[in-house]
Amino acid sequence: MYRTNTCGELRITDAGKTVTLAGWVQRTRKMGGMTFIDLRDRYGITQLVFTDEADAELQSEAAKVGREFVLQVTGKVAERASKNKNIPTGEVEIIVERLTVLNQSQTPPFTIEENTDGGDDLRMKYRYLDLRRECVRKNLELRHQMTMEVRRYLDSKGFLEVETPMLIGSTPEGARDFVVPSRMNPGQFYALPQSPQTLKQLLMVSGFDRYFQIVKCFRDEDLRADRQPEFTQIDCEMSFVEQEDIIQLFEGMAKHLFKTLRNVELSDFPRMTWHDAMKYYGSDKPDTRFGMRFVELMDVLKGYGFGVFDNAAYIGGICTKGAATYTRKQLDQLTDFVKRPQIGAKGMVYARVEADGSVKSSVDKFYTQEVLQQLKAAMQAEAGDLILILSGDDANKTRKQLCELRLEMGSQLGLRDKNQFSCLWVIDFPMFEWSEEEGRLMAMHHPFTHPKAEDIPLLDSDPAAVRADAYDMVINGVEVGGGSIRIHDPKLQAKMFEILGFTPEKAEEQFGFLMNAFKFGAPPHGGLAYGLDRWVSLFAGLDSIRDCIAFPKNNSGRDVMLDAPAPLDQKQLDELMLSVNPTEK
Amino acid sequence: MYRTNTCGELRITDAGKTVTLAGWVQRTRKMGGMTFIDLRDRYGITQLVFTDEADAELQSEAAKVGREFVLQVTGKVAERASKNKNIPTGEVEIIVERLTVLNQSQTPPFTIEENTDGGDDLRMKYRYLDLRRECVRKNLELRHQMTMEVRRYLDSKGFLEVETPMLIGSTPEGARDFVVPSRMNPGQFYALPQSPQTLKQLLMVSGFDRYFQIVKCFRDEDLRADRQPEFTQIDCEMSFVEQEDIIQLFEGMAKHLFKTLRNVELSDFPRMTWHDAMKYYGSDKPDTRFGMRFVELMDVLKGYGFGVFDNAAYIGGICTKGAATYTRKQLDQLTDFVKRPQIGAKGMVYARVEADGSVKSSVDKFYTQEVLQQLKAAMQAEAGDLILILSGDDANKTRKQLCELRLEMGSQLGLRDKNQFSCLWVIDFPMFEWSEEEGRLMAMHHPFTHPKAEDIPLLDSDPAAVRADAYDMVINGVEVGGGSIRIHDPKLQAKMFEILGFTPEKAEEQFGFLMNAFKFGAPPHGGLAYGLDRWVSLFAGLDSIRDCIAFPKNNSGRDVMLDAPAPLDQKQLDELMLSVNPTEK
Repeated sequence: MYRTNTCGELRITDAGKTVTLAGWVQRTRKMGGMTFIDLRDRYGITQLVFTDEADAELQSEAAKVGREFVLQVTGKVAERASKNKNIPTGEVEIIVERLTVLNQSQTPPFTIEENTDGGDDLRMKYRYLDLRRECVRKNLELRHQMTMEVRRYLDSKGFLEVETPMLIGSTPEGARDFVVPSRMNPGQFYALPQSPQTLKQLLMVSGFDRYFQIVKCFRDEDLRADRQPEFTQIDCEMSFVEQEDIIQLFEGMAKHLFKTLRNVELSDFPRMTWHDAMKYYGSDKPDTRFGMRFVELMDVLKGYGFGVFDNAAYIGGICTKGAATYTRKQLDQLTDFVKRPQIGAKGMVYARVEADGSVKSSVDKFYTQEVLQQLKAAMQAEAGDLILILSGDDANKTRKQLCELRLEMGSQLGLRDKNQFSCLWVIDFPMFEWSEEEGRLMAMHHPFTHPKAEDIPLLDSDPAAVRADAYDMVINGVEVGGGSIRIHDPKLQAKMFEILGFTPEKAEEQFGFLMNAFKFGAPPHGGLAYGLDRWVSLFAGLDSIRDCIAFPKNNSGRDVMLDAPAPLDQKQLDELMLSVNPTEK
Repeated sequence: MYRTNTCGELRITDAGKTVTLAGWVQRTRKMGGMTFIDLRDRYGITQLVFTDEADAELQSEAAKVGREFVLQVTGKVAERASKNKNIPTGEVEIIVERLTVLNQSQTPPFTIEENTDGGDDLRMKYRYLDLRRECVRKNLELRHQMTMEVRRYLDSKGFLEVETPMLIGSTPEGARDFVVPSRMNPGQFYALPQSPQTLKQLLMVSGFDRYFQIVKCFRDEDLRADRQPEFTQIDCEMSFVEQEDIIQLFEGMAKHLFKTLRNVELSDFPRMTWHDAMKYYGSDKPDTRFGMRFVELMDVLKGYGFGVFDNAAYIGGICTKGAATYTRKQLDQLTDFVKRPQIGAKGMVYARVEADGSVKSSVDKFYTQEVLQQLKAAMQAEAGDLILILSGDDANKTRKQLCELRLEMGSQLGLRDKNQFSCLWVIDFPMFEWSEEEGRLMAMHHPFTHPKAEDIPLLDSDPAAVRADAYDMVINGVEVGGGSIRIHDPKLQAKMFEILGFTPEKAEEQFGFLMNAFKFGAPPHGGLAYGLDRWVSLFAGLDSIRDCIAFPKNNSGRDVMLDAPAPLDQKQLDELMLSVNPTEK
């Protein structure tokens, strides 16, 4: 061992001890015949002192070391004259007697500090240096702690972690697979799993009863801001359970994680139907840290000659407490915000409640004070509040626009505190959603989701109205996980495939192994999966999941540090019996 | 919840309680107006009773259920008249009052019993049914427990589990990679990791200090009997350590696992140099559950006119205690065994020590009793022992043949008890081995392995003699893990690449990111990796790693249950800009 102690553990009570430390040079300070070095490792920073008085040669050697050199030092722990109260080791320093430079370092391309001068691209290229920054490393420490706690909790509840294969078959349904050519089976390909969904269902058929796995999954999608081609799921499944059992167990896990990782005691999670989530928040993952629930205003504002509202399929408003002080400029900026192409509203109407209770709106010429007072009543607005209203000819689209406006107002008013957590279950999802692109009903969750028992008769008469035994856990507007009760009856499964437009042959081809398995005594079962990356980001208060991934890829799916992907040697292509087609320019 | 209790937990103290169970029909027995059903779940088996006396309709319904039907029953726990002492629930039965068939089952293609009538291929195709067998499920339960304990141990020692990426760059050095075409980067490919070796070294450069990961790795090799294209490693790395630190820490982990999983207390592991392992056992992973160490007999047996020995480059023998009773037929079978092409010996010489101490050998005409007595002394043989001797013109090849013979004799004499464990460290591996195929020295471990400090001067003069700071943990003749101290000095690393025949350009191309990283202050570091599949097999006493993998592949790399790999849709190939070349027949 190169050290007796880490750089994070020495305290005033250790004064007088001779110790050996090893670590990196965080910074050096030279003053007259003295050199101070802050030595850093994963555990902390300890100050080293070299003086001419004690050893002039050693002092001059120390004065020469640069940032990020790797040092091993032996010396005596001493009380510091000027103490640093900001770090746990700040009361001591090491009077160094022996110094070994274990390795040198070139000057790093950016500073290894919380506020680094390195841009995103540079830090990704030198990710191994970026990871030296405490603020980055802390995220990965949290990730480790979280997976430890997840495993502890699930193990204590009788779950078995079972590894499912990474080289499986491709299923054209759903997102695009990453594929892997098989050399031993020329012309054939494995696929990397998008999730172990079917395999965990097979484990239920096998009687494993309670399964989990923290597992890498893969999706070859065009990457949006916060997606990665490989991501990690906490994947769970249970047998002989109903929706309520799953919700109870995994709400328990969430509470356990909040308690152990953030020391937050959560009360029971409220539940909201998907229908209410869409109606009141315009989203199936509402941020419930703050109110501003939508109020539908069709009855209040239609029919007064304001064409935009009179012709609207939906008019909805939010009441922002105390925001009547918003200036004209701020309101114009909000209008610009909702008119951005990503949101797509045509405009925004506002109404202020004045100190005297009267209402002043941007459409005063169409509405009498009497109608505006009805608006105020409908919005439960009070003096000092600001009412913001959107309308449109597609209710769902308008609700999504209003959702964006609500979130923006929440941010502007400081109502989205990263250290406050608001959790809920969104339940009763629709079974299907209509796909314009495919011209057919698609499974909203996946084709194995169980319809609600009372809605099964609707499968024949009105499938679009069928609700599913499906549930999402939402925290602060982020869907951290979701799942469903699965179909275990082969006849019901066959009907589902029929509604989804699968021919029996296509269903057999893609899911034959699962449908076959179900013929041999499948138990009632269900489960859920969490997105680990998202959940860690939430706990760590990060803006991007990239920050909690050791070696993430960029938005083109590249690892710029490894410079992957890259062209293959011709020999490798030949062995795989593959050719790369010339790219059309 | 479909049940109040599992099928494994009811005891005589529960008699009188009304319970609900759910599970699979293991077997039914009908006797007159009674039906008995053994109901099975992961936790055990409980007997259900239906009688005409209590409810004739229910009894006749119960009589109709088949094997592997999924049932839910409610009834009273009662003491059994004829108790089954073999199972923990054997003192009670359930007098059933309500029966629900949750799902039916076709007759399974093989019996769900420890001694099943299903062949290997059938059981792999219906792996989900094979996994219902307790003996198979137990292996996966053990695997879960083992990974839990590994994580507990390493977490307690300050290790962080860090997920490294699965989509990385291809490195032509070493075994063949599985590759993944990138749609977003046409003509370019990711590779799946053969191990996270370079990434964990980067984490050391990052100052993570102690890293581990239980991680899937991939190798596209022609599959031998007990290899899988995807396998799982317990991968570990530490900074500021020497070989002794790593050996101590991971020997501690092995002891912890033996104690918690097998209740075996192990004493300190002996260490054996690679040189001694080859000399005394003809293997770098000797099975030390039994003796029979090789004795070299060149001095004893050469020069007496027996041409085979006189011309041999190596003559070695093993002494098998008490095997002088072996018949001529048994000895002929042993000769046939060593002459099999897989082993390749030309023949075998034997010598028996008779009750009176005299020695009778198969080559008596060449050797006097006096010489044979010298043989007896060299072999430390006693009355009743059997000496087996091999020779050849290549010492290493002959030692490997003798190794096979020794293992066979160990098996025949019952010296390889699966419930006895003999652990050791094999150390001081050679740095390089000569590759006939490549016509150059190859790294025995990998190119990042640190040479022993005292052998560094030999790198220039006699590289083949250089030993490495490399170590393997061997248990019962199985290499469960191995590792090394890594090079952290860029100059030494460059020299190593040079000896391995890399041009600076090729080294840069393949390992540039690592060599670059080492310019920014790499700490001294080292680590090791365990093969999880092998280790679980060892703990479970299995003959094949397949039995501790939920969904293994066959020797052609196929998953016969999923029927993967398979041809891709043309659309998928087009998106990837790939063509499959016609196979030449």
